[in-house]
Amino acid sequence: MHRRAAPAERTNGVQGAEGNERLNAFSDGVIAIAITLLVLEIKVPEHIPPGGLAGLLPDLLPKLAGHVISFIVLGIYWVGHHNMFMHIKRHDRTLLWLNILFLLCIASMPFVAGLITHHGDDPLAIASYGGLLVITGLVLDAIWWYASHRRRLVGPSIDPELVAFIHRKVLSGPLLYLIAIGIAFFSITLAKLAFAIVAILQIMPSPLDHYHHKQLDGRE
Amino acid sequence: MHRRAAPAERTNGVQGAEGNERLNAFSDGVIAIAITLLVLEIKVPEHIPPGGLAGLLPDLLPKLAGHVISFIVLGIYWVGHHNMFMHIKRHDRTLLWLNILFLLCIASMPFVAGLITHHGDDPLAIASYGGLLVITGLVLDAIWWYASHRRRLVGPSIDPELVAFIHRKVLSGPLLYLIAIGIAFFSITLAKLAFAIVAILQIMPSPLDHYHHKQLDGRE
Amino acid sequence: MHRRAAPAERTNGVQGAEGNERLNAFSDGVIAIAITLLVLEIKVPEHIPPGGLAGLLPDLLPKLAGHVISFIVLGIYWVGHHNMFMHIKRHDRTLLWLNILFLLCIASMPFVAGLITHHGDDPLAIASYGGLLVITGLVLDAIWWYASHRRRLVGPSIDPELVAFIHRKVLSGPLLYLIAIGIAFFSITLAKLAFAIVAILQIMPSPLDHYHHKQLDGRE
Amino acid sequence: MHRRAAPAERTNGVQGAEGNERLNAFSDGVIAIAITLLVLEIKVPEHIPPGGLAGLLPDLLPKLAGHVISFIVLGIYWVGHHNMFMHIKRHDRTLLWLNILFLLCIASMPFVAGLITHHGDDPLAIASYGGLLVITGLVLDAIWWYASHRRRLVGPSIDPELVAFIHRKVLSGPLLYLIAIGIAFFSITLAKLAFAIVAILQIMPSPLDHYHHKQLDGRE
Repeated sequence: MHRRAAPAERTNGVQGAEGNERLNAFSDGVIAIAITLLVLEIKVPEHIPPGGLAGLLPDLLPKLAGHVISFIVLGIYWVGHHNMFMHIKRHDRTLLWLNILFLLCIASMPFVAGLITHHGDDPLAIASYGGLLVITGLVLDAIWWYASHRRRLVGPSIDPELVAFIHRKVLSGPLLYLIAIGIAFFSITLAKLAFAIVAILQIMPSPLDHYHHKQLDGRE
Repeated sequence: MHRRAAPAERTNGVQGAEGNERLNAFSDGVIAIAITLLVLEIKVPEHIPPGGLAGLLPDLLPKLAGHVISFIVLGIYWVGHHNMFMHIKRHDRTLLWLNILFLLCIASMPFVAGLITHHGDDPLAIASYGGLLVITGLVLDAIWWYASHRRRLVGPSIDPELVAFIHRKVLSGPLLYLIAIGIAFFSITLAKLAFAIVAILQIMPSPLDHYHHKQLDGRE
Repeated sequence: MHRRAAPAERTNGVQGAEGNERLNAFSDGVIAIAITLLVLEIKVPEHIPPGGLAGLLPDLLPKLAGHVISFIVLGIYWVGHHNMFMHIKRHDRTLLWLNILFLLCIASMPFVAGLITHHGDDPLAIASYGGLLVITGLVLDAIWWYASHRRRLVGPSIDPELVAFIHRKVLSGPLLYLIAIGIAFFSITLAKLAFAIVAILQIMPSPLDHYHHKQLDGRE
Repeated sequence: MHRRAAPAERTNGVQGAEGNERLNAFSDGVIAIAITLLVLEIKVPEHIPPGGLAGLLPDLLPKLAGHVISFIVLGIYWVGHHNMFMHIKRHDRTLLWLNILFLLCIASMPFVAGLITHHGDDPLAIASYGGLLVITGLVLDAIWWYASHRRRLVGPSIDPELVAFIHRKVLSGPLLYLIAIGIAFFSITLAKLAFAIVAILQIMPSPLDHYHHKQLDGRE
């Protein structure tokens, strides 16, 4: 007994239903809320030391830095989702649920970021933060795998190199975060620094990109 | 004295006004906020036991599991709303208000989920949670009933089997949740498990779907 | 020296710039957040009396009722904004700012609703809540006045009766809320009841509507 | 070795990818959340003095005024972003990240507004608030500079005067805020007043605009 699509889906000639407006809008909403609340989590201090707010800076600045890193990390995932869904043209039930799984990871980000802000010396905080980043990246890649495999939900004429390029780009995140988690076994401070460096690396156009592009050029 | 449409509505040839962009955007916004805040409700523990964060896991893990279930439940309703409004093409005043009633249920979800997180052994917490899920499902079905009855706000050529299929799909939720509430009379732990199973059942393509599809195929 | 439009605006043949997608999306966002947080403001009780959650119901139920009313009130304003902007086709700087003023009222709603929830016996709480509702309605009507006056930002062939109908519909809110505030001088309980009745009145298709429609029919 | 665009970007004839719907929707989401939470930050007082809520007014009114100012300031940035992206037609990786940087500033606004609400007499609070406003304005201008320079992401036939007009308009904010920060060295009360005046100045169509428009007219 083979599986069949529901009647709603069968009405389309191609696989999946046209139009990802609501999927995108819902995702934008969840990411926007998570990214904004991240910064809002920094509480205005109730009590001020005798020297004024300046006396709180040594305590406040590392927290602010941490939140900026987390903001950038969520920004990376938004950019990744945005760029991926420029190519995903349709959706089906499985894609909707993979995307909701991705959003569950996104919505959990402020929690693990809070763990690292308040208990940053606890190895479990680092592991939770890094682990969630790895899982989020893998889920995002699963979305791309599902959508692009056999051109299921992308355009029929998509460049195979582009499919592979997006896989490499998305999977580079989890790989780098795994290295940062490994560093945590030796030094938690170095691990935090590693997370910051990974975040900045992912924003920058990297030499790795150049290499891939040259490869792409060579075979054209 | 028979009722008449307001002038704004009379300008349309067919019943209701074209374009549900804002209805969808507003719904996506409310669901996105409710689903994100659900996870944000898990507070970062202020005080850490001597053994580090690991000592909090026995307390934290069931809460995390509960929030994942609630996240999935809200996800189910978003998917249901999304799929239903792929077929609802127009709106009128009544549909707007049925939809706001649906959103009231959605926005209340974090509250009842919080009840079950913090006071999960209280039968009233289970009843509130399950009861709200039942009502939400019934309201969603009322939207479909109102929109599809006599093709009021859907396309004129919609497949009657599809109309019935969506009713069955949407109503299966409240039915299953009612059973879970019934189980709560015997064991609250079993009832919680039942909610989790129902949530997972609703994501999975079920054998029930296959049966319906075979029925649909038989008559084509 | 007469005022002139900025270069950006002069490029359009008609007054104002085409396309209110972002104005609508931004408004939907603010209203969605305000309406969702309204319900989220009901806190899960930390401590439970010996009799279980049921013992809290006498305290919780009026709060829940109040929040449902406030949810409906915000829903009314969303529906009003939605229906009005089905006819407003363009925007200019003044409309953007009138709309931001409207959103300031909307965003302030959870605060005054909180006043009434926690200090509902204080006349100032009733006055703040009612006063904000009156102002919000007047601002919404100012938006309509500005947009529809001399067909500034609406379609050139809009029915004058429709322009007047929307004014009456929008202004009926502030009028009714003023009466409810007046009742508060005699009895705060009655005033709260009046707010609930007004909210329900505005949802229901009213006999007043029928009268206007008959008038409209007579002149066609 | 010169830099090359990624394969995704090379598929477009012109520079950057078409369609800023998601960039705009994401930005609207973040600004809507930040602007709404700004007002929600005003807490309903738990304890009421013997004279009723009226006794809290002297404490509450300046806070309310401050939040209205902050609401207007965020509104100014939304209007600025909105007007700017009426002309920006495409995006690339750099624009996405400049925009995320802008949103980081926006999301940080409630924090610095909270500093000024709770510790408004501390010079560091004024400096943080004013400093963030200056940076936000500079980032917004950087977006315009990047997009409009050599017509990178705007229409090819955009009026050079319009490009310059938007620069002047956007940069006038940071300039005025810098003056307000300077005033804080003499009087914190005057500085607060200056922020309020700047906010109102930016809403009002200013004589400066008229001058520019006359200039524009002269050369046509």
